[in-house]
Order: sequence, then C-alpha cells, then structure tokens
Amino acid sequence: MKPPADVAHTLNHFFDEHLPLTGFMGLRLASYDGHTLVLKAPLAPNINDKSTAFGGSLYNAAVMACWGFAYLKTQEAGIVCNQVVAEGHIKYLAPVKGDITAICKTPGSDALAQFFEAFHSRGKASITLQASIACGGSEAVTFEGRYAILRCTS
Amino acid sequence: MKPPADVAHTLNHFFDEHLPLTGFMGLRLASYDGHTLVLKAPLAPNINDKSTAFGGSLYNAAVMACWGFAYLKTQEAGIVCNQVVAEGHIKYLAPVKGDITAICKTPGSDALAQFFEAFHSRGKASITLQASIACGGSEAVTFEGRYAILRCTS
Repeated sequence: MKPPADVAHTLNHFFDEHLPLTGFMGLRLASYDGHTLVLKAPLAPNINDKSTAFGGSLYNAAVMACWGFAYLKTQEAGIVCNQVVAEGHIKYLAPVKGDITAICKTPGSDALAQFFEAFHSRGKASITLQASIACGGSEAVTFEGRYAILRCTS
Repeated sequence: MKPPADVAHTLNHFFDEHLPLTGFMGLRLASYDGHTLVLKAPLAPNINDKSTAFGGSLYNAAVMACWGFAYLKTQEAGIVCNQVVAEGHIKYLAPVKGDITAICKTPGSDALAQFFEAFHSRGKASITLQASIACGGSEAVTFEGRYAILRCTS
C-alpha cells in the first residue's frame, strides 16, 4: 500500500486532466493524511447574489471531497476501477461567507475493509461517505454521498 | 400576475449578473410556460473523465431548474424576497452522454398556494420541488430540493 503522500497529488492531476468545472472553481486538494481529505476553493468564481458561496459550488466541493477520498483509497489499495457517484444529499445550514473548505473524514477502517472486500469478491462495491463545510467555526453544510466502484472491463 | 413570457428572461439575467459558475457551465433557460421550466447546458464545459456529464454539473443544472422555477413563481406573484436552497438530494441513475437538459415541473397549484400563503402570513416559507435529467429517452438523474423564501428586511 502506498503512503498517502505519494498518491495525494494524483487528485489534483485528475481534476486538471478531466474536470473543467473544478478548474473554473479553483478546487484543489489542500491536505490528505489517509484519514481526512480537505479540498479548498476561493470564493470569487463560486460567488452568488448574496456575496456568499453558491449552493452548487458547495455541493461540488463536498461531492468531490468524498469522491477524492474514495479515489485515493482505491489508489492506495492498488485497485484499478471505474468510480462514480451514485447519490448525493446536501443540507445547507448557514451561508458560507468566504473561501470554501470541504472536509471528508474516513468512515473508519471497518467500512473501508468491507468496501474493498465486496469489490474483490463481486467486482463492484459502494460506500457512503460524509463531508462538511464550516463557516466561522460552525457547520454550514453537511453532505452524504454514495460512491460506487466497478471493475474495469477493458 | 405577470404572464410567464414577461418574467422568463429574468432568470438568464440573474445567472449572468450573479453566478459566474452557471456562466462557465453555459447554463441557460430553454423554456418556461408557467408549469414546466427547462434549463440546458452544453456538454463540453461540463464533461468528466468518462466523456459524460460531470455529476457536479448535473446537480447544478437540477438545483437551478428548481431554484429558477421558484424564482419565477415568486416574480409572477409580485413577491420581493430572499430565496435560498435549503436542501438537495440527487440520484444518478445513468450517465448523461450529451448536453444537459434539466426539467422542473410544477408541484401543483395547491402546493404553490400554500407556499405563498405561508410567506404572506409568516414572512417565510419553503417548498419542495423536483427536477429530472434524461438521456436517450430514459431518466438519468432525479433531484428533489427544498427552497426557502424570506421577507427582505432591508
């Protein structure tokens, strides 16, 4: 298993290579230690009519924090697969009045082990991950997403 | 109450004026007849690694189709308010292999009447709206969002 530092840069590379929308947002990996993944984006390209962060940008940051966590975990485990988001549920609790910081924390080693075991035995698996975005020390956004991985057939 | 044709253009104006992200996406009002609102966006700025539409872009199109429906309904009713999205839940059922077309249909005249009555009596109200995105004749994305309006205090 590769250490997190070796694989973390692959997420920004993925964004640059494949997702023009995250490029416009300025969404970048800020940190990843194997347990917590942090994405950041500046307010300016993600602003709304109230001069706070646009709800669509907040969703994108949260969905990609969890997507990135699953992506790096499969990279670390040496799994080659297609990964998709199957479902996302976001709650907007308060406005985000500055830059966006989306944090995904590990669902725990048991959940990850089950995820990988299901993939190895059935060729597909899904995992539920959570992210949050804070503003001024309080939780402003909560997100839960379900991510599926499928064995590559080509 | 103004007819839909008079207010429909105000949605694109709102996007242009306030939301740089929808500008990058190329998200525009395609049609609105008072009952159904359709937003469209080209695939190119919204593409992902599988050459289909990025899940974040699909969310943005769906959340803004419902947001736009609520926005135009409040405009038609002559209501001056702040409007926010409070919650969004999206299910990705199949890839979207071309341009994005997000459709929000009216929740019905009773639901709208309750929404406006609550606003007039309490100064705030919320409504649940649904949108969908199809691909190849089949439903590819379903979305449900809750939108709140608040009386302007300034």
